[in-house]
Amino acid sequence: MRGGTRARRRRHAAARAPDVDIGALTCLIGYMLRRAQIAVFQDVFRAFAEVGIRPAQFSVLSVLAHNPGRTQSQVAAALGIKRTNFVALIDSLERRGLAERRPAPRDRRSHALYLTDAGKTTVRRLNRMVDKLEAGMIRRIGRDRRAVLLELLSRLAEGESSVTKQSPARHAPRKRGS
Amino acid sequence: MRGGTRARRRRHAAARAPDVDIGALTCLIGYMLRRAQIAVFQDVFRAFAEVGIRPAQFSVLSVLAHNPGRTQSQVAAALGIKRTNFVALIDSLERRGLAERRPAPRDRRSHALYLTDAGKTTVRRLNRMVDKLEAGMIRRIGRDRRAVLLELLSRLAEGESSVTKQSPARHAPRKRGS
Repeated sequence: MRGGTRARRRRHAAARAPDVDIGALTCLIGYMLRRAQIAVFQDVFRAFAEVGIRPAQFSVLSVLAHNPGRTQSQVAAALGIKRTNFVALIDSLERRGLAERRPAPRDRRSHALYLTDAGKTTVRRLNRMVDKLEAGMIRRIGRDRRAVLLELLSRLAEGESSVTKQSPARHAPRKRGS
Repeated sequence: MRGGTRARRRRHAAARAPDVDIGALTCLIGYMLRRAQIAVFQDVFRAFAEVGIRPAQFSVLSVLAHNPGRTQSQVAAALGIKRTNFVALIDSLERRGLAERRPAPRDRRSHALYLTDAGKTTVRRLNRMVDKLEAGMIRRIGRDRRAVLLELLSRLAEGESSVTKQSPARHAPRKRGS
């Protein structure tokens, strides 16, 4: 809650400082991407704090809910998370009793990941929070522009590799890794 | 350079893991905002590493270039940076000889911020890098969609306060703090 109040105070402070021109930054996609991400994640952190979950932990829980039994490397790769960070993430979820590692059936050296029953309940609760947060974002940008925003973000997220695949005529968001 | 190679390897690994469905995440604005921001900033970090500058330092240098003589509180508020973090940022730029604090003419307790000549040269160099990076992003999303993306990001960056101000009919990017 404290973070949220501070965040609001900062936003108001910015509104009270019209004598500083940051126009050279606000016309940069990179800068505005970071400002938007920080603003959105302040709300996400505040909501998830109720459950004691961080956004990266949520992304793992969500993937395990839809893809039970995948290996650590598969899930880490799909989420673009470095192996060492990913192992720490799974450790934290296992300690909380939300996820568990089992020996992978085809490769005993690797671990297959599953949600526990508590994990499934937590994901459902987090999904309800996420639905509310997303609805708030959609209200801010306008309902009809959600698909465009997702497509543009997807193109940026794909990085250099998307340059060759890019087709300006396409308006539907691309599916990634599905 | 190392960060960039690792980043590319991760992106390729994600492309090789089509059996993990992260569709439930990629339809979330919050998630895609973070993925896009991380991908874009990997390129920014790599480019800026040549000059030994971090993105937050660049944002301060850029604001000082356009707004010489503003106080620490004014610049921090305009950029939405917490006071303690901002003081550390200015310290680092002062140690590098890129910026300097002078007593503020109207209020001796506060400091007015200026770029040094070395700071001005560095900003010009960074601006050339930023222009190239932005051109790459614009190629990825399509030239005609830059304005839309900036407007949508601006609405998200403004957070809750924008809900009441929002007018779906407006298509021009809003100016922030200018």
